[in-house]
Amino acid sequence: MTVDEGRRITITAIAQEAGVSVPTVSRVLNGRNDVAPQTRERVEELLRRHGYRRRATRPRAGASLIDLVFNDLDSPWAVEIIRGVEDVAHAAGVGTVVSAIHRRSTSTRQWLQNLRTRATDGVILVSSDLAPPVHAELRRLNVPMVLVDPAGVPTLDIPTIGATNWAGGLRATEHLLSLNHRRIGFIAGPPRLLCSRARLDGYRAALEAAGLPVDHQLIAPGDFYHESGYSSGTALLNLADPPTAIFASSDQMAFGAYEAVRRRGLRVPDDVSVVGFDDLPEARWSSPPLTTVRQPLAEMGLLAARTVLRLARGEAVDTPRVELSTDLVVRDSSAPLVQR
Amino acid sequence: MTVDEGRRITITAIAQEAGVSVPTVSRVLNGRNDVAPQTRERVEELLRRHGYRRRATRPRAGASLIDLVFNDLDSPWAVEIIRGVEDVAHAAGVGTVVSAIHRRSTSTRQWLQNLRTRATDGVILVSSDLAPPVHAELRRLNVPMVLVDPAGVPTLDIPTIGATNWAGGLRATEHLLSLNHRRIGFIAGPPRLLCSRARLDGYRAALEAAGLPVDHQLIAPGDFYHESGYSSGTALLNLADPPTAIFASSDQMAFGAYEAVRRRGLRVPDDVSVVGFDDLPEARWSSPPLTTVRQPLAEMGLLAARTVLRLARGEAVDTPRVELSTDLVVRDSSAPLVQR
Repeated sequence: MTVDEGRRITITAIAQEAGVSVPTVSRVLNGRNDVAPQTRERVEELLRRHGYRRRATRPRAGASLIDLVFNDLDSPWAVEIIRGVEDVAHAAGVGTVVSAIHRRSTSTRQWLQNLRTRATDGVILVSSDLAPPVHAELRRLNVPMVLVDPAGVPTLDIPTIGATNWAGGLRATEHLLSLNHRRIGFIAGPPRLLCSRARLDGYRAALEAAGLPVDHQLIAPGDFYHESGYSSGTALLNLADPPTAIFASSDQMAFGAYEAVRRRGLRVPDDVSVVGFDDLPEARWSSPPLTTVRQPLAEMGLLAARTVLRLARGEAVDTPRVELSTDLVVRDSSAPLVQR
Repeated sequence: MTVDEGRRITITAIAQEAGVSVPTVSRVLNGRNDVAPQTRERVEELLRRHGYRRRATRPRAGASLIDLVFNDLDSPWAVEIIRGVEDVAHAAGVGTVVSAIHRRSTSTRQWLQNLRTRATDGVILVSSDLAPPVHAELRRLNVPMVLVDPAGVPTLDIPTIGATNWAGGLRATEHLLSLNHRRIGFIAGPPRLLCSRARLDGYRAALEAAGLPVDHQLIAPGDFYHESGYSSGTALLNLADPPTAIFASSDQMAFGAYEAVRRRGLRVPDDVSVVGFDDLPEARWSSPPLTTVRQPLAEMGLLAARTVLRLARGEAVDTPRVELSTDLVVRDSSAPLVQR
């Protein structure tokens, strides 16, 4: 049997070509277990080859739901992204299903199981170190996917939405240089994440452009969380020749650095300037309010929702990889260096 | 026709009694517009009288979705509640649809519209000043409802889950009294909310128990947000006889008070002790870490999800009004009064 690529392939045609019954093809499409592995493989291969599109998950009058999946909901910027996604989804008459998979395979399986029992128009994954089987399963279900903040999984061929991390690192460091700081400490993120490496490279590039050496003593490790900002901030202030400014590559680490400064009986920004990265709502509420690099988290959520809804309608996505620009927000935690 | 209350009433019986067709009853149940108002009223009255339960929304193999509805997602504790709800829902194989209705009637209608096009097992409303028509509509759809943090709508007859606000206000004030503070400022929440009034009454009760007068100059207005904490904190510190401690009835207002203290060139807790209410994650990250009254927000979410899933299965709820206990978390923002 030959298939006209221009026409939409039907389940009946797939069943004929595979030499199985129509219910068997349905069972494969629905991810059921009661199909022999060889049969499943043959059917899946044909579905792929003919570009079969599962109607149930790409409807016009569809599921009216999109899925937004986090590793953990304790990420401080989760709510910002939820807000952006919900805004677009709500306006489109679509509900936003929020899930956390806690990096546990049982939890991930449970989520996939839930996804099979109900329909979804598409899935937005946030910073998800997606295990390859999960990715494969979503692809098999033919569910459109978008990845927000692709921190280290750049090889998956799905649309990604990130922020200009390198430019943000550059800009924050330039700001501190413009305030006459010359010894600028840097608290890094986890080296396995692309965004961490990009921010560090931006910091280095600004120093080099200013003709300053990169002092490796001034680069301290971190994991984006508060505690590492506190401990690395303390270590930096304990150096024989301590920095006069600290650029922490997340807001939470910047707040940890605040506490390191306070515990030494010093003040931000009088004694030490501190700059963060993210612009969480808390950056406005901290004392002093934090100078930081704004990641447009809600906008990233908006764009992710628009993209996944477009894919759900079967439309093409113009640019599969987008980086939204970061922006320096100057508040009260950075001040000119006063020579003593 | 008489109806045996012990038996489950059917749509057919309702149709007979109302003198309409079965499809007409279905249209009423599905919230469709193409039913004459008088007919709708008659059918709804019969459905109510016979306690008809819509099978589609109270299924065993149901929608596999619950709805979690906020006024706004910028509430700092939204993510805490989402986390609690998602945890229970996820374990039950149920998705959590998160929505914000922005206190706008268009947005609320849009949400109701979305709810009609897909099924839901139940709705959790968070601090929702539910317009009566919305409540009536949800009731008509026969969707189980639970209200979290019933801030001012105590008359709706649906299960509510709150926290012991009065006891929390009492405990925070007792803590400051035990540190020898005698002039304790209080920054209030919006007076229309029950929780605000309960916290203020707890503050007053502690002062009275200690034999101290309630000085109305020390009670400043607020709306739970940062800015009001800053302005009322500033006003309190500007008094001729300023307080030595400030109890802000939300964490965000406490952070505003921190900034008021800092702007006067003073320090927390050396010069002024500050205590908050909520125990947001930010309370651990602030500098100094904030002493605050912990509201068990995630637990409130857990309990709300368990309750709504129980209602969805047609089970009874033991206690329709629950207040989870608050707890004082002592960190570094409160210190003994030092006489100068």
